[in-house]
Amino acid sequence: MSPAVHDLDDLAARARDGSPRAVAQLISLVEDGGSAGGSERARALAAALAPHVGHAVVVGLTGPPGVGKSTTTSALVGGLRADGRRVGVLAVDPSSPFTGGALLGDRVRMGEHATDPGVFIRSMATRGHLGGLTAAAPQALRVLDAAGCDVVLVETVGVGQSEVEVVALADTTVVLLAPGMGDGVQAAKAGVLEIADVFCVNKADREGADATVRELQNAMAMTRRESGPGWRAPVVRTMASRGEGIDELLAAIDAHRAWMVEHGRGDEGRRRRARAEIEAIALADLRAQLRAVSGSVALDALAGEVAGGGLDPFAAADRLREAAVDEG
Amino acid sequence: MSPAVHDLDDLAARARDGSPRAVAQLISLVEDGGSAGGSERARALAAALAPHVGHAVVVGLTGPPGVGKSTTTSALVGGLRADGRRVGVLAVDPSSPFTGGALLGDRVRMGEHATDPGVFIRSMATRGHLGGLTAAAPQALRVLDAAGCDVVLVETVGVGQSEVEVVALADTTVVLLAPGMGDGVQAAKAGVLEIADVFCVNKADREGADATVRELQNAMAMTRRESGPGWRAPVVRTMASRGEGIDELLAAIDAHRAWMVEHGRGDEGRRRRARAEIEAIALADLRAQLRAVSGSVALDALAGEVAGGGLDPFAAADRLREAAVDEG
Repeated sequence: MSPAVHDLDDLAARARDGSPRAVAQLISLVEDGGSAGGSERARALAAALAPHVGHAVVVGLTGPPGVGKSTTTSALVGGLRADGRRVGVLAVDPSSPFTGGALLGDRVRMGEHATDPGVFIRSMATRGHLGGLTAAAPQALRVLDAAGCDVVLVETVGVGQSEVEVVALADTTVVLLAPGMGDGVQAAKAGVLEIADVFCVNKADREGADATVRELQNAMAMTRRESGPGWRAPVVRTMASRGEGIDELLAAIDAHRAWMVEHGRGDEGRRRRARAEIEAIALADLRAQLRAVSGSVALDALAGEVAGGGLDPFAAADRLREAAVDEG
Repeated sequence: MSPAVHDLDDLAARARDGSPRAVAQLISLVEDGGSAGGSERARALAAALAPHVGHAVVVGLTGPPGVGKSTTTSALVGGLRADGRRVGVLAVDPSSPFTGGALLGDRVRMGEHATDPGVFIRSMATRGHLGGLTAAAPQALRVLDAAGCDVVLVETVGVGQSEVEVVALADTTVVLLAPGMGDGVQAAKAGVLEIADVFCVNKADREGADATVRELQNAMAMTRRESGPGWRAPVVRTMASRGEGIDELLAAIDAHRAWMVEHGRGDEGRRRRARAEIEAIALADLRAQLRAVSGSVALDALAGEVAGGGLDPFAAADRLREAAVDEG
């Protein structure tokens, strides 16, 4: 379960050969990066993988609960596989206390793709992970990339800040909505208009689908997009449970990707992921430095002074930080 | 909206006199601590408040959605007011994108207490707040404490890690459950058995209430509590919407408080809050140092190297961190 550093090259090689077991082990290792000894391994692993990454395109899927994200993700996997593409799926649940090797659950969840050697499926919990999704996911994406995935689908449950964070990770972001959830208004609130590269109105056979599509298109016409002028997010209708509209959705995703490459912006997502990852690692290291002194008598004494009203917490934090930098 | 540092003493004085407006402004100021110029103000404010804090007892309320937390909180406010105690309410929603002055919503939410000058009600969003609840709340608690609250109720929506975090803030933690939600099993999973000082089985007129109470008592008998031997969390039945059981719930909360004081552990909560606050501030400061260099050409160049596979992210993070410490 805890291979030594010298086993990592072998593990990485097997992952590149397409061993789902090796991929799962590697992701467990990077998830474990924060624990004792994990950091050394994570460093060695990143170094081992570095020469083999840079191929995968990351597609983020987000939207409110109940909109059919899992079903759509599963249908997209089918479409990509029919196309001969190797696929990774990273299902992120920020509220789940269960982490890592939920392999059985993963397989049950996407039953039809569970035995396909061209598909890697992984659940990831970000609960308790400092920096959330953007800190936890990049290294898992790196593993899936090195394992030869052409496309990695990142699916979030869309609570908390994950719908914003997924954008920091993705080359293309798909925002899913469904008719009759008051989504038009909610979408505007949550700022999803700005983050979507492609809109997917799922359950399009439901009443209100036309209104949802129209509302989105109207709202889009009034919204300035963060990614700048040029690309206008198309609205695709799907009935993912029946596989309808999935080819169109894939075409829209590919069109956005092609547009980005054509406009010299093909590596923007990769750079964004790298930025987020570097910052997250640096912050985690600083935090570790802080923790090293936090366990000390020093913090207890400082906390006692603050609790007693004799010291304000900012002055106490300054002293703690000085101690951490001295130790680091 | 942005008072100068020299206005803070005046604002703090008015808060101590019981001005809800001053309290609201002060909490807005501490929430704003991360923005430009905010940190200076937050420091000055903490210094202004420090001599006036140390009285309030913090009671955390947590539990799964739908269990009746808001109703119970509101009923507890009524009970505490009937008892002549001054009450603060901090309602924390980690998934809400709305922050701060949701005063209208707050007042609607707890309509009957909205015009009571002995009650301060505040909503707080922790979304996007690094360190979550434990980083965002202590300073707001400090304001409510300085404003003369005898008790501050901290209510969380109980998603993600908030139910654990609330414990770090509270002197007494109340875990709410309801019959027929499969809560016994869920409770064991989420580790709430270890964190509860008092259990409240709300909606106790529902079928299955007896089973839930029994399940909790059985599970408690098998669980070692983090707070050590001695105190055994009582299970109180309430029907908060009708005000039933609220006196018993308050009595259980007071009994836990009295037990802690009696056993020389009365300031544990205060010290825990101080620890969390000091660490959160120190981490935020380190992060600010990191951000100062993150906006720089340096990070862009590092991200480019990592994206290109020429550098692994850990090595890049080391370089970024060195740059931050040099600047800091």
